[in-house]
Amino acid sequence: MKTPVPDYLKHVLSACAANDKGKLADYIPELANVNPDRLGLALSTVDGTIYSAGDDKVEFTMQSLSKPFTYALAIKEIGLIKVLEKVGVEPSGEAFNQISLDKERNIPKNPMINSGAITTHSLIPYKKTVPRAEQIRRFLSALAGRELSFDEQVYQSEIKTAFRNMSIGYMLRTVGVLEDDPKEMVNGYIKQCAIKVTVKDLAVMTSVLANGGIQPKTGKRLLDRSVVRQVLSVMLSCGMYDAAGDWLTTVGIPAKSGVAGGIIGVLPGQVGIAVFSPKIDEHGNSVRGLRIFENLARDMGLHLMEGTPSAQTILQSRYTVGKKNNVVVYELRGVLQFTESEMLLRILQDEPAGKSTIVLDLTNLSLIHDVGVRMLFEGVDRLKQDGYKVVVVDSEGLLDKEQLKGRKREVVTEELEKFLEKFK
Amino acid sequence: MKTPVPDYLKHVLSACAANDKGKLADYIPELANVNPDRLGLALSTVDGTIYSAGDDKVEFTMQSLSKPFTYALAIKEIGLIKVLEKVGVEPSGEAFNQISLDKERNIPKNPMINSGAITTHSLIPYKKTVPRAEQIRRFLSALAGRELSFDEQVYQSEIKTAFRNMSIGYMLRTVGVLEDDPKEMVNGYIKQCAIKVTVKDLAVMTSVLANGGIQPKTGKRLLDRSVVRQVLSVMLSCGMYDAAGDWLTTVGIPAKSGVAGGIIGVLPGQVGIAVFSPKIDEHGNSVRGLRIFENLARDMGLHLMEGTPSAQTILQSRYTVGKKNNVVVYELRGVLQFTESEMLLRILQDEPAGKSTIVLDLTNLSLIHDVGVRMLFEGVDRLKQDGYKVVVVDSEGLLDKEQLKGRKREVVTEELEKFLEKFK
Amino acid sequence: MKTPVPDYLKHVLSACAANDKGKLADYIPELANVNPDRLGLALSTVDGTIYSAGDDKVEFTMQSLSKPFTYALAIKEIGLIKVLEKVGVEPSGEAFNQISLDKERNIPKNPMINSGAITTHSLIPYKKTVPRAEQIRRFLSALAGRELSFDEQVYQSEIKTAFRNMSIGYMLRTVGVLEDDPKEMVNGYIKQCAIKVTVKDLAVMTSVLANGGIQPKTGKRLLDRSVVRQVLSVMLSCGMYDAAGDWLTTVGIPAKSGVAGGIIGVLPGQVGIAVFSPKIDEHGNSVRGLRIFENLARDMGLHLMEGTPSAQTILQSRYTVGKKNNVVVYELRGVLQFTESEMLLRILQDEPAGKSTIVLDLTNLSLIHDVGVRMLFEGVDRLKQDGYKVVVVDSEGLLDKEQLKGRKREVVTEELEKFLEKFK
Amino acid sequence: MKTPVPDYLKHVLSACAANDKGKLADYIPELANVNPDRLGLALSTVDGTIYSAGDDKVEFTMQSLSKPFTYALAIKEIGLIKVLEKVGVEPSGEAFNQISLDKERNIPKNPMINSGAITTHSLIPYKKTVPRAEQIRRFLSALAGRELSFDEQVYQSEIKTAFRNMSIGYMLRTVGVLEDDPKEMVNGYIKQCAIKVTVKDLAVMTSVLANGGIQPKTGKRLLDRSVVRQVLSVMLSCGMYDAAGDWLTTVGIPAKSGVAGGIIGVLPGQVGIAVFSPKIDEHGNSVRGLRIFENLARDMGLHLMEGTPSAQTILQSRYTVGKKNNVVVYELRGVLQFTESEMLLRILQDEPAGKSTIVLDLTNLSLIHDVGVRMLFEGVDRLKQDGYKVVVVDSEGLLDKEQLKGRKREVVTEELEKFLEKFK
Repeated sequence: MKTPVPDYLKHVLSACAANDKGKLADYIPELANVNPDRLGLALSTVDGTIYSAGDDKVEFTMQSLSKPFTYALAIKEIGLIKVLEKVGVEPSGEAFNQISLDKERNIPKNPMINSGAITTHSLIPYKKTVPRAEQIRRFLSALAGRELSFDEQVYQSEIKTAFRNMSIGYMLRTVGVLEDDPKEMVNGYIKQCAIKVTVKDLAVMTSVLANGGIQPKTGKRLLDRSVVRQVLSVMLSCGMYDAAGDWLTTVGIPAKSGVAGGIIGVLPGQVGIAVFSPKIDEHGNSVRGLRIFENLARDMGLHLMEGTPSAQTILQSRYTVGKKNNVVVYELRGVLQFTESEMLLRILQDEPAGKSTIVLDLTNLSLIHDVGVRMLFEGVDRLKQDGYKVVVVDSEGLLDKEQLKGRKREVVTEELEKFLEKFK
Repeated sequence: MKTPVPDYLKHVLSACAANDKGKLADYIPELANVNPDRLGLALSTVDGTIYSAGDDKVEFTMQSLSKPFTYALAIKEIGLIKVLEKVGVEPSGEAFNQISLDKERNIPKNPMINSGAITTHSLIPYKKTVPRAEQIRRFLSALAGRELSFDEQVYQSEIKTAFRNMSIGYMLRTVGVLEDDPKEMVNGYIKQCAIKVTVKDLAVMTSVLANGGIQPKTGKRLLDRSVVRQVLSVMLSCGMYDAAGDWLTTVGIPAKSGVAGGIIGVLPGQVGIAVFSPKIDEHGNSVRGLRIFENLARDMGLHLMEGTPSAQTILQSRYTVGKKNNVVVYELRGVLQFTESEMLLRILQDEPAGKSTIVLDLTNLSLIHDVGVRMLFEGVDRLKQDGYKVVVVDSEGLLDKEQLKGRKREVVTEELEKFLEKFK
Repeated sequence: MKTPVPDYLKHVLSACAANDKGKLADYIPELANVNPDRLGLALSTVDGTIYSAGDDKVEFTMQSLSKPFTYALAIKEIGLIKVLEKVGVEPSGEAFNQISLDKERNIPKNPMINSGAITTHSLIPYKKTVPRAEQIRRFLSALAGRELSFDEQVYQSEIKTAFRNMSIGYMLRTVGVLEDDPKEMVNGYIKQCAIKVTVKDLAVMTSVLANGGIQPKTGKRLLDRSVVRQVLSVMLSCGMYDAAGDWLTTVGIPAKSGVAGGIIGVLPGQVGIAVFSPKIDEHGNSVRGLRIFENLARDMGLHLMEGTPSAQTILQSRYTVGKKNNVVVYELRGVLQFTESEMLLRILQDEPAGKSTIVLDLTNLSLIHDVGVRMLFEGVDRLKQDGYKVVVVDSEGLLDKEQLKGRKREVVTEELEKFLEKFK
Repeated sequence: MKTPVPDYLKHVLSACAANDKGKLADYIPELANVNPDRLGLALSTVDGTIYSAGDDKVEFTMQSLSKPFTYALAIKEIGLIKVLEKVGVEPSGEAFNQISLDKERNIPKNPMINSGAITTHSLIPYKKTVPRAEQIRRFLSALAGRELSFDEQVYQSEIKTAFRNMSIGYMLRTVGVLEDDPKEMVNGYIKQCAIKVTVKDLAVMTSVLANGGIQPKTGKRLLDRSVVRQVLSVMLSCGMYDAAGDWLTTVGIPAKSGVAGGIIGVLPGQVGIAVFSPKIDEHGNSVRGLRIFENLARDMGLHLMEGTPSAQTILQSRYTVGKKNNVVVYELRGVLQFTESEMLLRILQDEPAGKSTIVLDLTNLSLIHDVGVRMLFEGVDRLKQDGYKVVVVDSEGLLDKEQLKGRKREVVTEELEKFLEKFK
């Protein structure tokens, strides 16, 4: 069988293709030369499957799409606390190119507007031999899983007419948010905006965010969960400029748009999405891109508030082994967060007395949060108080050192089957 | 075993109890008479399990907590389109008691500020014998699963000093948003605010929202999914007044607070949460309530952006039956939304040729979205094109008429076991 | 000879009569019933000469034209300091019907917007038997020099749809600016707005302001100079709503408009002006009224910045009398303020030594400011130090007690001619 | 006799000298090095008499004091219409260093804030050999009556930290208000700000404005009356930043301040005023300077709303000559504007019939406005209709060609005495 998902995507594209409103970004001369009819869409699941349709191999410059990733890199490099000293997290209620300094603190309101993005760029630590824009290119390449490059023509074109960004840069210097030469920072920021990507690249990059910071294909952790959480939260509240409430009710996923026509979106735990269509509206958002996101939200339930009641599925299976059937095995699967842990504890609560051993098998879990670990061992303790012997099987090594502290006697790292053999 | 969840909640409470900042709401005389040390917390899962701690039986008035529910009722009664004509969905960036009319449309910016809430109240259809506040009380009672009542003393106290709401009411009348006597609407709104609840009531009420509109205990659908989605989206963007970005990054769940000291929160698909502690800050939010929500988000991962990668768990089991093992059975479970459907289709894609029959068992699914149905049947069609015979088992009747249209031949409603007997 | 001034006014009227833009105020039903083509204009000089043209006998309601006069009455009654505690003097940059509370002080920004005017109304001291609106009517009648009356129909009509003012009233009550029942104050304010006048009445009333507070016809002081100065200053900065800068550059005189179609203006020391034409623009200003004011400013130099170099004219004549021509008489005229005093002192500076007596005759002065008195006597002292004998002739009693303190020996109150006889 | 005016000024200075609040402008390093205790005050009457006290010979940089004069020069050079296309006239309600673009027109709100001043600078026509700053220096020197020079040290110091102005410049370039290199314009503007003056210079310069554009000493017209009127109007509404209403009620004259500690004020038709004291408040206004202006307004009646009723003084004398006393001579003096003309016409109105000749002598008039000319001749026509012979004596040549058109037969340019000889 061939999966029909690509056909779905094509269907979505064709439904929006007729819309010919909007116009090419004209304030960057080079951007006005692209083919206005380009239309591409790509999705990447959290396990790395990519679907795409339309112009999925056409490269275009990231522009503002680089903002959330640079924000992530800045937090990764210098920590959230230092970043928050220079850039806020509040929606600005203003267009992307306004200065929007927070009145009380005199810092940019958020990293998704230009003032905040230029500041974020400046927060990437200075390295003598690797300019900030190059550091960002390398990080974005790691996210995308391939080497990305700069569009020198767009960069040169933009640098010549970057009056507004220069204005913003000097204002940031005035209030002390920028500490160095504004011109250098603005140029670096514009270079970062000129990194070239395809919708497929973007789908992979956003799927890293959807996947809690782990590159789905390489399995490598590129960002801590807490960084991802911060970036997605800010994308949700500040990513789509004005009309935040309208976006939230009709689309409802963290997103970001760029004036070259790209829009990216992330549904945490599920998918990363990217569209590309160069004609933009007066807010700088791709006209057809917006329509596509609305359709995805409406037709595919890709909306934050369409929360999946996932708790019901924590238990893979329960069975007894041993000569006297006195060993009860719980095979778990999925993610062990608060909701699932609560569910598990409720199930264990019903375990009748009289069994001597309970085995909790973590092997098939895909993720176990701190709160899940704590609640799991809390349950272990209570079962022990009730007279059981309890063994936790962690053959995949999900639990880290910190979490294992004081628990080593209760945890085995053998494969479940092997472990159970001794009871047969 | 006794579940440790209540102990967790107690721990959270005690960690916040020491905070004695804030003060009692003083602009409603009667509210200044409550015990300022009250502290209660309750959680309700989407399957109706309630955990609570502290003053969980103390009644207090809902005040602004009534806003999201009244908004839900208004949409339920007259439809979203008509509601959007009178009340917007944009954050106001202002305090709850400001007028905040949208400049272009001259209507309240959102239903979470007083002007929007008074307007929402007025949208509940007039019934000669059942005042609007009484209609709301009945709806809220259905949500809570018990008969709620009005606090007449608080109502009478508030009515006497309701200058600001009167001012707002007359302004709404001026711009034509209110069409009747402003005094009557303001009085009705104040009465709605005086409905008494406990944190346990609120936990149940919010769990209806977490559960997509179905009362977890009665299993009765009280609100359409689309209504819930709208209400939660608006709570997320407009529920916590100023500093929306700060709330989103640190707590990150749709929420609403009331000046009597209550705060409610909803994690879609997971839990409804309610806290109560009467001392409020200058924004009108319960001081200890805010701390509790921050702790729950940080310690328990109760944050929208901590998305659970739920897709891995759609397949309960796969096995072959029949004499020639030529019948492949897929037992599904969980929720069939886009992500899960995509996962399923990917699994089916690997199905080697040469099997004559594929059985897809929906019995254990807890929910199937439209997109899931469409993708399921799309997969069915492709499998048939590949030469399979495909049968969908829907013994629980999850598919509705609309979804079954043209598909009757492929769907059976027998129990799976019974259906499989014919192959043995 | 017949003065051509009325013909000038007719000419101005006819130049503007063709303009049929604007429309009748529709938010007060009764105002929509007037003849939209009415057009009247009146001027009153500071000595009480009235010129008028067009519909100069048609009565209409003052509406907002009552605001500056009520402000004057409030200051007269309770003093400027107390008034400033409740109403500011800053332009609001907003439409007349906005609430416009000053953010820091939470009081209305100025007395020319409705919130400030309702507050000003409330500042008129309560009298058991004379409602505030009646007190205001009596004061306005004194200004106009005839008994004015209320338009009961307009009052009743406006009271029924006074939603916005009611809203403002309740908001003022909320913030504590109003201390009594908002409804009563709003009704009183609306009644004040319904006082009927003609353009001739208004010209007289404004000429009192132009004349420093003295009714030109009766010669009676109705307002202190300091009150007039305050009222005119506020009219200048806050009288014409938005576009204050535009008004100042093109017309440049303190003014106020009312939605019934009246506009009044005051050129201090020169004229009071009133026009009436009921069709108003979107700001509530009479369309033809604005044009007329612009024409008067451009064609007649009636603009604050067309300051008259008045100093040159302080000296009526200088001559010597006495047998030895040793008595030098200075007959002064006009106004003795700083500029004129400076001029006088400079002239006296040239007085060659050797004369034994200098007579300064104040008889023909129309006004002598405090600073004029001080500088005059300072000059007297210096002349005396130079060896002169100096006599000030104040036959009209211009100098008051305070000013005469310690100066009685130098001042005579005889008529000049009589006084000079002794030297002949 | 020695005039006591200088002693008055000293008294005013010493009354304010004790105030040691405020601090030196610190954002321009060089400004932080001046003697903070400097205190100077100068007044110039419209006939060129200068009074001064305190540090009246100390030079300091004009800074923002250059704004109104540059605005005047720009209007003089390219006309008001072109200037208004680039810079508005509305108060900004913001600090001097904000961008404050008018929202609708996207141009600076007024020429008194930096964005408007930089734009105004750019409007001075480009001359290859004379930089704009030099053109301005020359014009200011003409106003001051001596060659002014640049303070190169302050200029160099400011240029290094001009981040905010650079930001403003680039923003103006973005919106197309500036059409050339922003850096060049900002540097030029900063150079213009570094022109050095004393309070005496400033008093003379402002007296030109007070005198309707004519340099009092040289008698040369440097600016048209209409330009002066525009500049003064804008100074009044936009000159003192925030709190325009407060300034208007307490001081009430067009003014401008500079961060080097200067404040200038103009009372049209009367005086130009300048103070200097380097310590400034948080708005950038000289602390002691403000106090001095308040004192001058309060004690000396130097307030726009203290309008002088000048009309009474238009008639110098009336007498009859001729054998039969049939020639009535009216010697006029002062200014012939609307108010005075009206007065004159009223006097003529009383002229009994039967005299054959009326002579109107303009010789002693100091100024005759267009409206005055028109009304005068209108009166002449009516007198003629009544049967008089009328002769206007204009021995000083006050009437220009345009005004004389068609009137030559009625006007003689002989000296009055000579002209009257023929009747004797």
